Amino acid sequence: MTTGARQRAWAALADHWQDLQATRIDEMFTADPRRFQGWSVALDDMLLDISKTKLDGRALDLLADLARAAGVPQRLEAMFAGETVNATENRAALHPVLRAPDQAPRHVDGRDVKAAVAAEDARVRAFAEGVRDGTIAGRDGEPITDVINIGIGGSHLGPALAVRSLRPYRDGPRVHFVANADGADVSDTLRGRDPRRTLIIVSSKSFTTTETLANARTAWAWSARALGEEGVAGHFAAVTAATDKAAAFGIPAERVFRMWDWVGGRYSVWGAVGLPAMIALGTDAFDAFRAGAAAMDAHVREAPLTRNMPVLLALVGVWHANVCGYPTRAVLPYDHRLNRLPGYLQQLDMESNGKAVSADGAALTGHSGPIVWGEVGTNAQHAFFQLLHQGTRIVPCEFLVAADGHEPDARDHHDLLVANCFAQARALMRGRCRAETETLLRQQGMDAHTAARLAPHRSFAGDRPSTMLLYRRLDPFTLGRIIALYEHRVVIEGTIWGVNPFDQWGVELGKELATSLHGRVAAREGAPDADPSTDGLLGWRARLADGEGA
Amino acid sequence: MTTGARQRAWAALADHWQDLQATRIDEMFTADPRRFQGWSVALDDMLLDISKTKLDGRALDLLADLARAAGVPQRLEAMFAGETVNATENRAALHPVLRAPDQAPRHVDGRDVKAAVAAEDARVRAFAEGVRDGTIAGRDGEPITDVINIGIGGSHLGPALAVRSLRPYRDGPRVHFVANADGADVSDTLRGRDPRRTLIIVSSKSFTTTETLANARTAWAWSARALGEEGVAGHFAAVTAATDKAAAFGIPAERVFRMWDWVGGRYSVWGAVGLPAMIALGTDAFDAFRAGAAAMDAHVREAPLTRNMPVLLALVGVWHANVCGYPTRAVLPYDHRLNRLPGYLQQLDMESNGKAVSADGAALTGHSGPIVWGEVGTNAQHAFFQLLHQGTRIVPCEFLVAADGHEPDARDHHDLLVANCFAQARALMRGRCRAETETLLRQQGMDAHTAARLAPHRSFAGDRPSTMLLYRRLDPFTLGRIIALYEHRVVIEGTIWGVNPFDQWGVELGKELATSLHGRVAAREGAPDADPSTDGLLGWRARLADGEGA
Repeated sequence: MTTGARQRAWAALADHWQDLQATRIDEMFTADPRRFQGWSVALDDMLLDISKTKLDGRALDLLADLARAAGVPQRLEAMFAGETVNATENRAALHPVLRAPDQAPRHVDGRDVKAAVAAEDARVRAFAEGVRDGTIAGRDGEPITDVINIGIGGSHLGPALAVRSLRPYRDGPRVHFVANADGADVSDTLRGRDPRRTLIIVSSKSFTTTETLANARTAWAWSARALGEEGVAGHFAAVTAATDKAAAFGIPAERVFRMWDWVGGRYSVWGAVGLPAMIALGTDAFDAFRAGAAAMDAHVREAPLTRNMPVLLALVGVWHANVCGYPTRAVLPYDHRLNRLPGYLQQLDMESNGKAVSADGAALTGHSGPIVWGEVGTNAQHAFFQLLHQGTRIVPCEFLVAADGHEPDARDHHDLLVANCFAQARALMRGRCRAETETLLRQQGMDAHTAARLAPHRSFAGDRPSTMLLYRRLDPFTLGRIIALYEHRVVIEGTIWGVNPFDQWGVELGKELATSLHGRVAAREGAPDADPSTDGLLGWRARLADGEGA
Repeated sequence: MTTGARQRAWAALADHWQDLQATRIDEMFTADPRRFQGWSVALDDMLLDISKTKLDGRALDLLADLARAAGVPQRLEAMFAGETVNATENRAALHPVLRAPDQAPRHVDGRDVKAAVAAEDARVRAFAEGVRDGTIAGRDGEPITDVINIGIGGSHLGPALAVRSLRPYRDGPRVHFVANADGADVSDTLRGRDPRRTLIIVSSKSFTTTETLANARTAWAWSARALGEEGVAGHFAAVTAATDKAAAFGIPAERVFRMWDWVGGRYSVWGAVGLPAMIALGTDAFDAFRAGAAAMDAHVREAPLTRNMPVLLALVGVWHANVCGYPTRAVLPYDHRLNRLPGYLQQLDMESNGKAVSADGAALTGHSGPIVWGEVGTNAQHAFFQLLHQGTRIVPCEFLVAADGHEPDARDHHDLLVANCFAQARALMRGRCRAETETLLRQQGMDAHTAARLAPHRSFAGDRPSTMLLYRRLDPFTLGRIIALYEHRVVIEGTIWGVNPFDQWGVELGKELATSLHGRVAAREGAPDADPSTDGLLGWRARLADGEGA
């Protein structure tokens, strides 16, 4: 498909949306009683149901054409093959190799990386199991009871999600996470821990991340106060691509584990970055987690586009973001231990696709990635569902729910949870018109005047789209599938939008300006060479921090 | 101002935006070197800077006209006076009386409520102090070391925010929160606690909240297993407006504390709902928290509209949501212990103003409340700031930062935090054009061809608006001011949009459908009378939960 043909496909989608808009989603089930069967796709014990969106056959055909025109299958294969798909950083994006079940060679720049990955993985596993079984202990021989991971962004969100989500599988040390430059984070985390039983993992691809080094220095000093300067190194480990810098920091080489240039931070939980999760959960559970991702890798490569879970989720995303014009999407796990998933996906999605130029540097003519937000159900029902149901802004909702929980005694809780999840998706689609509401209020004994007055407030337009991901249980294998599903979805969407989903140049300017302001902040000076607001704020901050009034 | 005049004011704003759009925010500082001073407003040691938005004098005048035409000052006074401002529920919204420093009578429906509020507050305080000093102990005389608050939405988010934000002030028992219907929440929270030293607070205005009752029953059974059925009541307390229902549940009358009909859940942290925070922090700290809110109450009533912090924040909100057309706003506290603030504001804001009909039941012609989302800095920089800086969607950012932290040893951390916060706001406004980027890359030694190729990816359009709230330190008084600032902002915005910011009818349909589906879920049945997707999902769920394959 040429550029012109792609423009025509977008235009055809816009035209089609004009026609389709007035048709309600629930009417589409009347027109096609088998819509649920046709618009849901299974992968073993996981089901993605997209029937409660307004996609129809023609829309899907046009979207699939766009995906083919953007070369989605080829781009995925190029990614899996280790080609330089991250052109602006001149790198591959070969995170799938970290979870590949086979030992077949995988080449990056002509060199096989699989053997190196396997060797490094053996080191990581040995270290994790050593900490778990006590053969790797504190300096005084005390077993490690607490692990503190110091890292931010890609070095934080993945392992934190895994440890939190898989709490029923944790049988190793407790794991804590420190990310923020704010001293409150490291201070609150260190307080009450025993340095003699604490292992600190410093995780930073470049080993220059400002926050991480500040926190690592603070933790080092805390450790040194208890163990002496010479005792600290035995309580530290590092995960980095800059092994020389970790060594210079003072971390022994045998405790430095490698990140790879060709894996982006937000795609990196599968390797050494996952070390805290491996310590908490054990290597068997971590293997199952990887195997789940590998199963999704196989599916995305093998399934036809219109029966392919990541592709369908991506097409739904493009449909909502570009054709329907919905600027956000809500991720709503009805699974309490997935409460870090919305935050994880905010990074994965918005850092990948929050871009305004295409991979070749041209300004985009349409929108790229939407704003991703969310919260676990049922909590979210008592927070912002008011807006989802009755607000003036349409928010496509992505529900996730397990058929079963981990608490055999809490079967009633789980039934309630599932009922709420399905009911919300149904309510968003169904709505309740004013006449129906008025009749209902009259049946409840309300007088006609009050019923007429209140009915507008208690009615629902409905016709609001949602998707549902249903899985048997949130075990390690399933968590791996879920993360890989979203990874591929994001890459596929980015490919359709034409952006490079693997770089993140947009974070650089803020970093540079922070570095240039830092000295002024520390010296309690203004910055007359900056804008007057920044200068004025620096002055206010200096006076307030010195205890002066306004 | 008549309806026609208001429509003309909206049209004038739209016209003005057309003219203003091409002017960059940073140019507005060149045109007016005193813009920072003119467009920031102080309340003691708290500063709100709105100079880095595109508001100018004419826009502010038009917005202030709209606020006056909507009767903002009168509506606020009506709220403070206990009038029935929540017309669809036929109630007052008198949360400010819970923090009013004076003992002057306040009337609701002709009855003074202040004396009742004071009497109830004395009961709550005595209970909190009794738990803290050990005079109220467990059944076996053991002191209470852990408090578990069972509640959701308004009975969860406020006290959880207060306890989390004010951690340096906690000198009482540990406090935990259970909200979700998911059995994982209550199960993970109860595990490892000692029932003999645990106090459980059941918090529900109606005492019929499904999740809360399910969790309370589970906690009751857990307690009974250790203490015997007769020992449980002494470990429970309740916060509710339905005191009879709490008594029927089995909670002794002297441990049931009252919520008021005329205070909405999301505005209720100031009264008995705050009990867990009062136990954790003590009554002195809780008094300071209330006093901060009272200071903001006095400010919002006394300050002229254009020097009034909640009014200005509201006008910025309306400007961005309705005139500029930005569908979301991001709340970005550079204060790690405020990590629950975005979630708190999601409820306060979206449950209040996520509505499509005006207070008199007419369909709105424009947008009401935007989508609120966010995360603490600096964590967010390593997650979604890519999209904020380079995405195709403009997100107005609301920064919050303290001049000083609570860790005397971590002054370097705090300087780094402040530098990052100010730098991000500056970067969003400033941007960096392609030519400047290209020059910079050449200066760094990059060849001309590569610099030209990469410059589009490493450039920033800038001109993205933000506000900054700077305060001395996150102490109880300041937290009270911050929450009250946002409370009033939301009410003022709702008044301008014409909606009722105190009801939440939009959550009812989902609840009703959940109740009607619950039996089917529990019985592992389908629901052929529902839509085919819901029916199909019920079937899948039943098969998966029974351990069958797909």
